[in-house]
Amino acid sequence: MEITASEVSIQSMYKTTRALTKRITEPLEIEDFVVQPARFVSPPKWHLAHTTWFFEQFVLERFVEGYQCFHPEFKFLFNSYYLKVGDVPERDCRGFMTRPTVKTIMEYREHVDEAMESFLIDPPEESLFFIKTGINHEQQHQELMLTDIKYILAQHPLYPVYRKDFKEGYEAEPDYDFLSISGGVHQIGADTALFLYDNEKPRHEVMLRDFKIARKLVTNGEYLQFVKDGGYEKTGFWHSDAREFIENRGIKKPLYWVEKDGEWHRFSLAGLVKLKNHEPVTHISHYEAFAFAEWSGKRLPTEAEWEVAAPELKTGLRWEHTSSPYTPYPGYQKPEGAIGEYNGKFMINQMVCRGHSVATPKGHSRRTYRNFFHPEMRWQFTGIRLAGDG
Amino acid sequence: MEITASEVSIQSMYKTTRALTKRITEPLEIEDFVVQPARFVSPPKWHLAHTTWFFEQFVLERFVEGYQCFHPEFKFLFNSYYLKVGDVPERDCRGFMTRPTVKTIMEYREHVDEAMESFLIDPPEESLFFIKTGINHEQQHQELMLTDIKYILAQHPLYPVYRKDFKEGYEAEPDYDFLSISGGVHQIGADTALFLYDNEKPRHEVMLRDFKIARKLVTNGEYLQFVKDGGYEKTGFWHSDAREFIENRGIKKPLYWVEKDGEWHRFSLAGLVKLKNHEPVTHISHYEAFAFAEWSGKRLPTEAEWEVAAPELKTGLRWEHTSSPYTPYPGYQKPEGAIGEYNGKFMINQMVCRGHSVATPKGHSRRTYRNFFHPEMRWQFTGIRLAGDG
Amino acid sequence: MEITASEVSIQSMYKTTRALTKRITEPLEIEDFVVQPARFVSPPKWHLAHTTWFFEQFVLERFVEGYQCFHPEFKFLFNSYYLKVGDVPERDCRGFMTRPTVKTIMEYREHVDEAMESFLIDPPEESLFFIKTGINHEQQHQELMLTDIKYILAQHPLYPVYRKDFKEGYEAEPDYDFLSISGGVHQIGADTALFLYDNEKPRHEVMLRDFKIARKLVTNGEYLQFVKDGGYEKTGFWHSDAREFIENRGIKKPLYWVEKDGEWHRFSLAGLVKLKNHEPVTHISHYEAFAFAEWSGKRLPTEAEWEVAAPELKTGLRWEHTSSPYTPYPGYQKPEGAIGEYNGKFMINQMVCRGHSVATPKGHSRRTYRNFFHPEMRWQFTGIRLAGDG
Amino acid sequence: MEITASEVSIQSMYKTTRALTKRITEPLEIEDFVVQPARFVSPPKWHLAHTTWFFEQFVLERFVEGYQCFHPEFKFLFNSYYLKVGDVPERDCRGFMTRPTVKTIMEYREHVDEAMESFLIDPPEESLFFIKTGINHEQQHQELMLTDIKYILAQHPLYPVYRKDFKEGYEAEPDYDFLSISGGVHQIGADTALFLYDNEKPRHEVMLRDFKIARKLVTNGEYLQFVKDGGYEKTGFWHSDAREFIENRGIKKPLYWVEKDGEWHRFSLAGLVKLKNHEPVTHISHYEAFAFAEWSGKRLPTEAEWEVAAPELKTGLRWEHTSSPYTPYPGYQKPEGAIGEYNGKFMINQMVCRGHSVATPKGHSRRTYRNFFHPEMRWQFTGIRLAGDG
Repeated sequence: MEITASEVSIQSMYKTTRALTKRITEPLEIEDFVVQPARFVSPPKWHLAHTTWFFEQFVLERFVEGYQCFHPEFKFLFNSYYLKVGDVPERDCRGFMTRPTVKTIMEYREHVDEAMESFLIDPPEESLFFIKTGINHEQQHQELMLTDIKYILAQHPLYPVYRKDFKEGYEAEPDYDFLSISGGVHQIGADTALFLYDNEKPRHEVMLRDFKIARKLVTNGEYLQFVKDGGYEKTGFWHSDAREFIENRGIKKPLYWVEKDGEWHRFSLAGLVKLKNHEPVTHISHYEAFAFAEWSGKRLPTEAEWEVAAPELKTGLRWEHTSSPYTPYPGYQKPEGAIGEYNGKFMINQMVCRGHSVATPKGHSRRTYRNFFHPEMRWQFTGIRLAGDG
Repeated sequence: MEITASEVSIQSMYKTTRALTKRITEPLEIEDFVVQPARFVSPPKWHLAHTTWFFEQFVLERFVEGYQCFHPEFKFLFNSYYLKVGDVPERDCRGFMTRPTVKTIMEYREHVDEAMESFLIDPPEESLFFIKTGINHEQQHQELMLTDIKYILAQHPLYPVYRKDFKEGYEAEPDYDFLSISGGVHQIGADTALFLYDNEKPRHEVMLRDFKIARKLVTNGEYLQFVKDGGYEKTGFWHSDAREFIENRGIKKPLYWVEKDGEWHRFSLAGLVKLKNHEPVTHISHYEAFAFAEWSGKRLPTEAEWEVAAPELKTGLRWEHTSSPYTPYPGYQKPEGAIGEYNGKFMINQMVCRGHSVATPKGHSRRTYRNFFHPEMRWQFTGIRLAGDG
Repeated sequence: MEITASEVSIQSMYKTTRALTKRITEPLEIEDFVVQPARFVSPPKWHLAHTTWFFEQFVLERFVEGYQCFHPEFKFLFNSYYLKVGDVPERDCRGFMTRPTVKTIMEYREHVDEAMESFLIDPPEESLFFIKTGINHEQQHQELMLTDIKYILAQHPLYPVYRKDFKEGYEAEPDYDFLSISGGVHQIGADTALFLYDNEKPRHEVMLRDFKIARKLVTNGEYLQFVKDGGYEKTGFWHSDAREFIENRGIKKPLYWVEKDGEWHRFSLAGLVKLKNHEPVTHISHYEAFAFAEWSGKRLPTEAEWEVAAPELKTGLRWEHTSSPYTPYPGYQKPEGAIGEYNGKFMINQMVCRGHSVATPKGHSRRTYRNFFHPEMRWQFTGIRLAGDG
Repeated sequence: MEITASEVSIQSMYKTTRALTKRITEPLEIEDFVVQPARFVSPPKWHLAHTTWFFEQFVLERFVEGYQCFHPEFKFLFNSYYLKVGDVPERDCRGFMTRPTVKTIMEYREHVDEAMESFLIDPPEESLFFIKTGINHEQQHQELMLTDIKYILAQHPLYPVYRKDFKEGYEAEPDYDFLSISGGVHQIGADTALFLYDNEKPRHEVMLRDFKIARKLVTNGEYLQFVKDGGYEKTGFWHSDAREFIENRGIKKPLYWVEKDGEWHRFSLAGLVKLKNHEPVTHISHYEAFAFAEWSGKRLPTEAEWEVAAPELKTGLRWEHTSSPYTPYPGYQKPEGAIGEYNGKFMINQMVCRGHSVATPKGHSRRTYRNFFHPEMRWQFTGIRLAGDG
């Protein structure tokens, strides 16, 4: 049997990915694995099990004859939105289930890893798509784990540190220029790559007008001007739904900003730190990004503008808000089977973010990658890049 | 003084519009004017006053020196979302305010009509935009009044009749064909017309693929097949947010459908009537329209496809759901001043409907007209036109 | 046929009561009859119909052969808690039902009045209990109508007047003394009277300790001291459930108190008036009454203490809070039949008020009368009489 | 220095109590210590810390000069309702705080135990009340820990076992007789004892009528008859508030009852077990107990009846519902100081339970002991003893 380059690579991608997930949880206490302080947060132990369940369900049970599943109930407990697989436990109850314990879930991971590693010695062609999807799926959850861990630790009044050396910001001052790009027919999306999600396809033509786009992200210092200028109180900058949301919740500053002893701080994965003016603002909802852009006399880029401009931008610190609702590309085809529910069902009420963030695992980003969140969501490492008409 | 054609026309448009509003309320009892059985419904007396307030605020107070306002508090009470004008009473409380009475509001209308009619004898050029906007604004509320009245009467277990002769459907069987349209660069939107909303501008190029679009709307009979096939229970057809919504509310059929003595009926403005199979289904949310299209193996048209195809379609019975989120057109400019808040602030979380409905007043529809609703909303005369890739 | 004194009296009691109900609604506009701005409020037109339904259901349908009911659906629409009679419409929807109109309900009242008046010429002995209950029931609703009307009018920012001459307070300064009463075995409750509710029975012995009780009610001026002293902020005076309630709602003063131009006013049935210091405070919840008593270093009386002291007190301005939960007296027997559900089902979670108020119709009060409200309720004409250990 | 009997005893009571708390948590996984699946449940680690905080706050900080507190923030984090001590964290967030960890809290317990054990060698007279209160307070939390642990484990679909040998019921068939007791003046409450709560005082006279009371508690078998007879659907047996509660929640059987494979089971601390007919029903709310009594043609005893009858009853399996709202006894005096808030603030909206249960620690029960719960609460080991008029 020959081992080809791509097989080597998928085996090592699997191992690297699985190992990174574990590394992400290393600084945690067992207690941190259990809780769900908001509906959109999942307990870290749920992430550990759910990503493992994915490989069991879509790879081992499909392609490995006689595979012994670790526990028959886990199929039910750790499913999320793949509704075709069976009934699903209420998302809201994840944080009430103390069992299985972290220890059992770690054993579950090992059980599946062993089976996967044997299987990956010679995986059949038709399994590759599922393996790659599983790896990418776990990478997505790695980012969610970090943002969920941050949210969990933030519940504690004493601001516990996740990792002292976790860097969330820039080292140096950014470039304040705008880049000008000519309109006309451009192409966005992708049809071929090592791995693509269904929502990135098909590559297609879009009609753009001349536009300009900022080289840098909006900084804490700039956003602080907006706050000080009464930006959260002035109705004219906000969408109607946005105002209702921020007024009902009493939102007057970004999530994790803390005013203490007359100075602005922010809670970070390295604990509570002073707000640095030149670093890119983060944990900003689409609602806030839009209002800030209005206040600035600019606008957010569309996702097509972003994708066209991307090669000339320095990205990677923040998921960047766009003005594009998350919809299927023209000619979009739902993939078949249970995995087919993957993306289409989320294509309503959400806005596209582009790029990647300090929490995105290496290798899990592409120029054509489309991330998406409801416009009120603030717990991701999101940021703002301004644009304008050309 | 000369009276030019367009001045005659604006004077008569004003009179016609104001008279129609009154005619819409004629079948009502005073009690029907007062209540607000859902957040998205406004009491009819509020519509009567709010549309009047618009002319007082944006025309009479701006352009008529020495205008005596009818009551100083009405500025506060009957404002809605024009937040720049002042504080605004909670939308949720409209149905608790019994005063001013219908009689007083009718007097308010007469007071403003008298002042407007003098003013319209020779309105200055710069007032024309505001007058036309006021007329179009009142036309929009005429449609809302009808749908709100329907919702109000539907609260009553005995199905009161609004107007025995109100026709909500087709006279004859529809044409079951699909129309094929070629892709490429098309133009949508408009820059010039007697009257346009800001959201229709600017006219701009879009890139379309070949597509086909149904000549007729989806009928009750077709939708009933979906219901009988368990369409509301099968998760695969629905957006994730949609499932949560319909499950939380226990929704299993269109709003106003009633099963009685083993037969399907629907509540209409003419009372409870038997469901006719060949008539276009109505009071369908975007969520439901999307799920139905998935079940059919088709899709909804984009708003650009709809606008391109519109000249060859018979429209006017239902607002037609599109797959397009409500966003600004490329190059969109917010109009200035209080009226400037008009449309942009709603450009989030809503989906575009195109065409017009049996409740739309004559003259208040255009090929480029963009209506918009949150995707769960069902109280409008909405319907479904299917499309597909070409 | 002889007409005895008591038959004359029941006939005239019926007429007087029915006429008073109508008189209470005279100052209202039709719009005021329809709305339900809070769950505990009923639309005035519902009161008009419900009290009428009571006579139709429990008198005419039982005792008048061939009685033609006014409308078969009214049995369903205007029932309230007499669940044995049939299904019941959701209490929360009363304010959404615009039909039947006020006019139709007035016709309903006339229809029932005509039938009742013939019937009352010679009512059989076994009907007397139901007739008297119906009259007392309507008297209770007369008081509720006044408090509901006040609550409805209070929704309006301009403080509409119900009746300019409606007096809610004292004419003169009260007597500031306390009355001392000796403990021992006393009797409370009643077994015989022209009319009694089941909850007043049986008369029974209670063991009291020496106590003292205020001759006057707590005044606005005294309550204002409590407010100014931070009474609503200091946790020690409040029950735990009370604090949660007032903090969640942001309650910091009595319902209907309005601070305007630096002076305290209160909304009354005569419109907005200045707060008079010597008048008894009103629209006080049990929670507030308890906290005020704690702050004063006194306590509320028990209902037994109140009843024993009552002959020496001047009462009638306010329902007076007691420290007694509403429970059955020892030996309490539920009356049989649908009317039997009358009181027992409310004997949980409510506190007893004693006396009567400026809104209680004449003749509808007794020393043994037990009124009851949930401890957070504030829309009744309730007040505070302090007591202490002897 | 002499060591008197009572000092020995308080020292050993302290040790025994603290040791039992630890023993209760032995079967738990760390994960089980963290979560709060309902508002009325506290995470076990919170109980561990809160009971410890009580000794630190009210004994060590008051009486031990130079006491070094374990962590200054714990005063804030583990306070509950002793609001005078400082600000209090939202009760609802207890289940979101993963730190301090169980390990740290165990260190906190040891720190306080060491300090307490030195202190207990020669505690000053004036400290004894606080020490005894702390011990009794911890005993109360021991019972809550067991019922909270049961509730937490019940969230898991696989019914985890707490302790295989945990007995919740009778060994043998009960005695089905009723006991008759003569009315007249009786005494209840207590003024002197080794330890008493403020709410048991003062001992006072009550006037009772002849009554009878069941020798046994209502059994599962009897309650099952009520369920099968449609007891949860028949409105006549229930309080009005009770119906609203059970209908809104869809309650149709006792908490923890599970119908599986056609047979009734109940979740217990020993896992899922078959329902035994002769064992006393448990986890019954006051609402359910009242409705069951109505259905039986009996009633619940008052707390005075219960206390008078208690010497002749076999108690100890369940907290027994009474018909008495939780109110102060005549002549009740609030104790002074922070501990003074202890009981009075809960004397509203709650009903008294008497006796003790399988979860009550030994020594923590008295004939005069008054427990209290809101009438909808079901997570305690409550049961029903019927009574009737004599």
